[in-house]
Amino acid sequence: MIDETEKQQLNEIREEIDQIDAEIQALISRRADCAQKVADIKTKGGQVEAVFYRPEREAQVLRAVKARNKSLIPDDEMARLFREIMSVCLALEQPIKVAYLGPEGSFTHAGVIKQFGSSVHPLAVSSIEEVFEIVEKGDANYGLVPVENSTEGVVKQTQNELVTTPLKISGEVGLEIHHCLLSQQSSLEGIEKIVAHPQALGQCEQWLKNNAPRIALEPVESNALAAQMAQQDASLGAIASEAAAQLYSLNVLETHIEDRKDNTTKFWVIGSEATEPSGEDKTAMVLAMPNKAGSLLDVLSSFATRNISMTRIVSIPSTETKWDYLFFIDVDGHQKDANLAEAIQEVQQKTSFCKILGSFPVSPLN
Amino acid sequence: MIDETEKQQLNEIREEIDQIDAEIQALISRRADCAQKVADIKTKGGQVEAVFYRPEREAQVLRAVKARNKSLIPDDEMARLFREIMSVCLALEQPIKVAYLGPEGSFTHAGVIKQFGSSVHPLAVSSIEEVFEIVEKGDANYGLVPVENSTEGVVKQTQNELVTTPLKISGEVGLEIHHCLLSQQSSLEGIEKIVAHPQALGQCEQWLKNNAPRIALEPVESNALAAQMAQQDASLGAIASEAAAQLYSLNVLETHIEDRKDNTTKFWVIGSEATEPSGEDKTAMVLAMPNKAGSLLDVLSSFATRNISMTRIVSIPSTETKWDYLFFIDVDGHQKDANLAEAIQEVQQKTSFCKILGSFPVSPLN
Repeated sequence: MIDETEKQQLNEIREEIDQIDAEIQALISRRADCAQKVADIKTKGGQVEAVFYRPEREAQVLRAVKARNKSLIPDDEMARLFREIMSVCLALEQPIKVAYLGPEGSFTHAGVIKQFGSSVHPLAVSSIEEVFEIVEKGDANYGLVPVENSTEGVVKQTQNELVTTPLKISGEVGLEIHHCLLSQQSSLEGIEKIVAHPQALGQCEQWLKNNAPRIALEPVESNALAAQMAQQDASLGAIASEAAAQLYSLNVLETHIEDRKDNTTKFWVIGSEATEPSGEDKTAMVLAMPNKAGSLLDVLSSFATRNISMTRIVSIPSTETKWDYLFFIDVDGHQKDANLAEAIQEVQQKTSFCKILGSFPVSPLN
Repeated sequence: MIDETEKQQLNEIREEIDQIDAEIQALISRRADCAQKVADIKTKGGQVEAVFYRPEREAQVLRAVKARNKSLIPDDEMARLFREIMSVCLALEQPIKVAYLGPEGSFTHAGVIKQFGSSVHPLAVSSIEEVFEIVEKGDANYGLVPVENSTEGVVKQTQNELVTTPLKISGEVGLEIHHCLLSQQSSLEGIEKIVAHPQALGQCEQWLKNNAPRIALEPVESNALAAQMAQQDASLGAIASEAAAQLYSLNVLETHIEDRKDNTTKFWVIGSEATEPSGEDKTAMVLAMPNKAGSLLDVLSSFATRNISMTRIVSIPSTETKWDYLFFIDVDGHQKDANLAEAIQEVQQKTSFCKILGSFPVSPLN
C-alpha cells in the first residue's frame, strides 16, 4: 500500500506534470503560429500551388530530435511524437492527401501514418497503377508504393511504373513485419498443425522449436492463405500478420515470433516535386545498357571510383523489346552533390537508357 | 516566386521552430522522468500489481488541455497530441495490453489507439466473449467492446456479458463513422447502381441527390455485403467504410458522404479496477424489476427527484427466466457522489436485480 507521505509525493509529481503540460502546450501553440507564418509567406500573391511539405526539412528535424534525445523515451518513440506534432502543424498550412495501395489490410496504411503522421488524408486505391495515375493527375499530393518485401521480393508493378512516370521518388519508408501465430484456438493446445509460407516458417524456426516442438508444420503458398485455412479449420495454427487476424477473425496467440527482428517491407513516396538535399540522401535510378560483356561493370565503376556506395541493385526483364534487362540502382548521395552529378553524367554516356527516379532523404525513422 | 527577403524570413521562422522543438523535447523528457518517479513510488516494495493507468487522471489532463487551448490547432487535435505524449510516458511505467474485437478491419483498432494512444499493445481476438475472458484471466489489462452503433443498434453480446462479468466499465470511446462511395470504377461515370444498407442510403440522401441524381439505388442487407457485391460487379458502387475499401480492394471515390456528421459507434473500456471520480463522470447499471405496472417509472423517479440526468436507457429481453426484461441505464455522475449513491441505494430496494457496471469519465475526446 501507498502511505500518506507517498501520496503527497505523487500529488507533487502530478502537479509538476500539469505544469510541464501547460508549457509544452504553449510551445506547440507557438509552433503552429510559425507554421501559419510560413504559409502566409508562401501563399502571398495567391500562389495556391506553393509547396508546403518538404521531405528534406522533415528528415532534418527528425534527425535532430533523435540526435539530441537523452530522455528515458526511446529515440524512435520521441521521433514519432515530433512526427505527429509536425503533421498537425502541416495540416494547418495544407492538408496532405496520400494515395496508397492496401493489399494487406491496414498494413500499408500504417506506412502512410508513419511517414506523414496521423493528420494526413489517406486515400485507398485498388492497384499500384492507380496510385501513380491519381498522383499524376494531381488528385493526391503523394503516393506510397511498395518497393520490395522480404517474403515476396521486388514489386514488379512499381518498378514498371517508375520507368515511364513523370513523378519523382521523394522519400522512403520501412515497415517492420511481425509474424504472429493465429488460430481459432485461444492457446497452443488444440493446434495440430501450423501452416505458413515457407519463408515465414523459416523466419520463425527457433520460436517454433522452443514453443511448439510437437506440432506438425506445413508450407503453403502465402501467409494470407494460411490464415484463411485456419479460419476454416480449428485444428490449424497460421503464421501471418496481426492485420490478417482481423481480416479472418482469428485469435492472436503470440506476436513477434520471428527469430530476427529486422524483417521489413520498403515503400517509396512518389510526388511531382523534386526533393532538395537533406544532408543524408539516396538517389534511385533505372538504367539499360548494350547487351555486351562488361557493360554493367563499366557503369558501376563510375560510382566506385568516386567512392559512391551502391545500396541496392535489382535487375528485371524489360517489357520493352529494345533492352533485355533494366537495372534499378540506388546509391548514396543527392544528385545535386557535385561528386554524384559527375558520376551520373558519365553513366548517361555509358548507357542506352538512364532515368534518375529521384533523390530523397534516408529515412530517419526505424 | 519567393524573393530574397522572404527566403530570409522563412529561414528565421525555421530557426525559431528548431528552437521551439528543442524546448518541447526537453519538457517531454522531464515529463518522462516524472512518470518514472511515479512508477518508482508505486512499485516500491515490489508491488508488481500496482495500477498505473488511471482513466480519471487521463480524462482530467485531456480536459485541461482542451480548456486552455487557444492555439490555431483544433482542440481535439491538440488533445490527441497529448494523448500520444501520455501514452509514450505510460509505456515507460507499464505497457498496457488491450484486447479488442476487430469485426470491421481496422475500425475497432482505431478505437483502441484513440483511447490509449499508439504506445498501447493491442490484442485482436475473435469474439466479444473472448475479450471479457482474456481480461478476466488477466492476460490483458483492458478490453474494448462495442456498445451500440447507429446502423445496427445495441450490441447484445456485450450487454449479456456485462450482466455476469466481475469486470467494471472504466471508460467510453466514441468513433465517428464515415461513409464512403466505393467502386472498381475510378469515377462516378460507369456506375449504374449504388448499393448499401437502407440506413446508409438514408444517411447519404442529400449527397446522392446532388452528386448521383441519375444512378439507381438499391438497399441490401449490410454495407459489408454492398462492398462485396461491388468487388464482383464493376457496374456497382457501394456505400461503406474506408476499411471496407481495403478489405475488398475497391477505390474510394469519395469520403464523408454522410449528410450528418455525428454518426458514431460507442465502445466501453472494461477492466478489473474501479475508476475514481474525474469531475465529469457517468455511471452505468443494469436492472431487473417485478413485472408490474409503474415499476420502471418508480425506479426512474429515484434519479429524477435528485436531479440526476439519465443519458441512456435500453431494454433487452432477459436470457434468465426470472425476469422478462433487463434495463441498461446510464446516468450522469459517479457512484461515489453522495447524491447518486443515495439514489442507487433506493433503486436497489425497488428492483429485483441491480448491478452497477461501473463509473467512468465522460470521454474528453470527440
